[in-house]
Order: sequence, then C-alpha cells, then structure tokens
Amino acid sequence: MSTSSNSPYHHGNLRQALLEAALVILEQQGEAGLGLRDLARAVGVSPAAPYRHFDSRAALLEALAVTGFQRFAARMEAVAASQPDDPMAAMGKTYVVFALQNANLFRLMFSPQLKKDSRPGLRMAADAAFDTLRHLVGGDLDKSRIRALAAWAKVHGLAVLLLDGQIAIRSGEDTEALVEEIISSL
Amino acid sequence: MSTSSNSPYHHGNLRQALLEAALVILEQQGEAGLGLRDLARAVGVSPAAPYRHFDSRAALLEALAVTGFQRFAARMEAVAASQPDDPMAAMGKTYVVFALQNANLFRLMFSPQLKKDSRPGLRMAADAAFDTLRHLVGGDLDKSRIRALAAWAKVHGLAVLLLDGQIAIRSGEDTEALVEEIISSL
Repeated sequence: MSTSSNSPYHHGNLRQALLEAALVILEQQGEAGLGLRDLARAVGVSPAAPYRHFDSRAALLEALAVTGFQRFAARMEAVAASQPDDPMAAMGKTYVVFALQNANLFRLMFSPQLKKDSRPGLRMAADAAFDTLRHLVGGDLDKSRIRALAAWAKVHGLAVLLLDGQIAIRSGEDTEALVEEIISSL
Repeated sequence: MSTSSNSPYHHGNLRQALLEAALVILEQQGEAGLGLRDLARAVGVSPAAPYRHFDSRAALLEALAVTGFQRFAARMEAVAASQPDDPMAAMGKTYVVFALQNANLFRLMFSPQLKKDSRPGLRMAADAAFDTLRHLVGGDLDKSRIRALAAWAKVHGLAVLLLDGQIAIRSGEDTEALVEEIISSL
C-alpha cells in the first residue's frame, strides 16, 4: 500500500490528513456533506486514494467517531490532571463545551446509526472515555459504574438539550454561564 | 368543513382518530413511515380527508409532538399528585420510562427539526410540561428554573443514552432496575 505517486502525502500522513479534512467538513456541512470523493478533492488526492485508508463511507464515519472519543477523553484527562477545585463540575463543563464546539462530531460519536456493539474499535474508544469519568468518580467498581452513569447522564442531557435547541435561552443570556450555573446546581 | 359523507367519523372525532392511528404508526414504523395518505388508509377515510385537519405532514408531526407533551405532562402530574416518598426520583423514573415506552414519539417531541421557536403551540405544550417539573422543584422563580433545568438534563440524558443504545447493559441486567439505581444515585 502506498499513496499515488503524485500525492504530497506519505502513507500514514494521508490518513491523518483525510481525518482532519473530514472533521472540518463534518462541522461545516454536517454528516450529509461527507463523501470519500469530496474528501479526496478537499485533500488534493485522486478519488481512489481515500479508499486505501477507509473501505467505505461508514468506515470513515467510524474513524471520525473514534477520533472524537480519543480527543474527548484526552481533554477530560487534561482537565482532571489540572486538579480543579471541583473536578466533577470542571469535567461536566468540559463535556458540554466539547459538545457545543464540535456539535456534528458529538452527534456522530453518539449516533444510534453507528452501533458500537458491532464496532469493537469504536466501543473501545467510547469505553475509554467513560473510564476516565469512572476513575474520577472513584469508589468500588459497581458503585462507581452507577455513579459514573449518573454523572454522564447529567452532562449528556444538558449537551443534547442545548444542541437540539430545547432549552429556552433568554435574550442576552450567555450560554456558557448558564451551563456553569446548571452544572454547579447538578 | 365536514368529513366525507361515507366517513364513519364525525368532525373532531376524525382528528382524534387520525392522531391515535398516527401514534401507532409512529411507534411501529418510525417517523419515515408516517404520511397523510397512509394515515387516511389506516383510518379508512378518503386520501383527502386528513388534509381537513392537518395542512401538511409537518402539521401532523407537530400535532403529534403536542399530544406527546400533553400526555407526558399529564403523566408527570399524576405521579406528583400520588405523593410519592421521593417525588424527584418518581418523576425521573416516569420521564425515562415514558421515553423508553414511546421511543419514536419522544424523539419527535425533542426533534431539532421541529423547531419550537416557530411553532407557538408546540412551544406552549413543551413549556407546560417543563412547568410541571419547575413547580415540583419549588423555590423562587430564578433558582427553580436552574434547578428544574438541572433535573431535566439528568433524566433527559439518561433517556437519550438508553434510547440510543449508548449505555452498555450487562447481560441479564434489567433496564428498569438500572434506571432506578441511576436515578436514586443522581
């Protein structure tokens, strides 16, 4: 496997370049705007080149979701490592802000169409992100699972309600300040 | 306006019959299976008859979402009126169970495609459901808004994560028992 001779990318670099370009297209145009041919054009390689890295559009979407969970987990770990006064509140805000800043990626990560049960790589990336939360919650394994699920539900619900425009924001109200208020009340 | 002469429905009854039939189709086939013509067939009236009550498919979907919020609010009020030991936990469970039992209706009620800002009737029905929660939470208006939003986020998140198959249910685990455990830990 190698990239086409006139490609400016080394193998491996092209995969990363395709993912980066796809993330931009995903946020700008939504999932519907993402095709392997459009992506090839955006990156400046032959229409066939992306297929060396992604079998299908579904494989590309899965790889994007995996990337999303990895970045999400990394951001949560960085926040936890910064030892904030209230780790749960800090993680909660990080979760919601990530969702608002990467709305389409967040939707893709949690899309019911992208079933995690038949995609071990995606399941693993999602579980790794969840484990960051579980580790922060602490306690014995069974209890921490329930508490981590509860914490997850809270921040996921807030992210989804905001993304879906369900919470009536008052005129002049700052969304991020509202998020902080709701999270500290959670 | 009257129903066609060979219709078994009186005016008003037909609207209700259409909504009931649409709710059944929605749960069985999803939103994509819902057309005004299929609905006419299901109810046994002429293809034009549903248009006397719903201008368009979008108007039908909106009416279904309004009905959803009304039933949802009524169920929440009934639970509150039954004076459970832990009203917030009882309401939370009611919320999640409603979502699981009426998955497609719940998705429709919170669909970002059905913008509440341009649909006053839908906005009003959704706000009325939210007010039930706010009333239960109590406190002064500004505080109760934040606390009600927080309570809402928790149960909405749990409902969405379960509906979207994001929570890894262990083999043999009872979903409703898990919901209760998570809610009482919230």
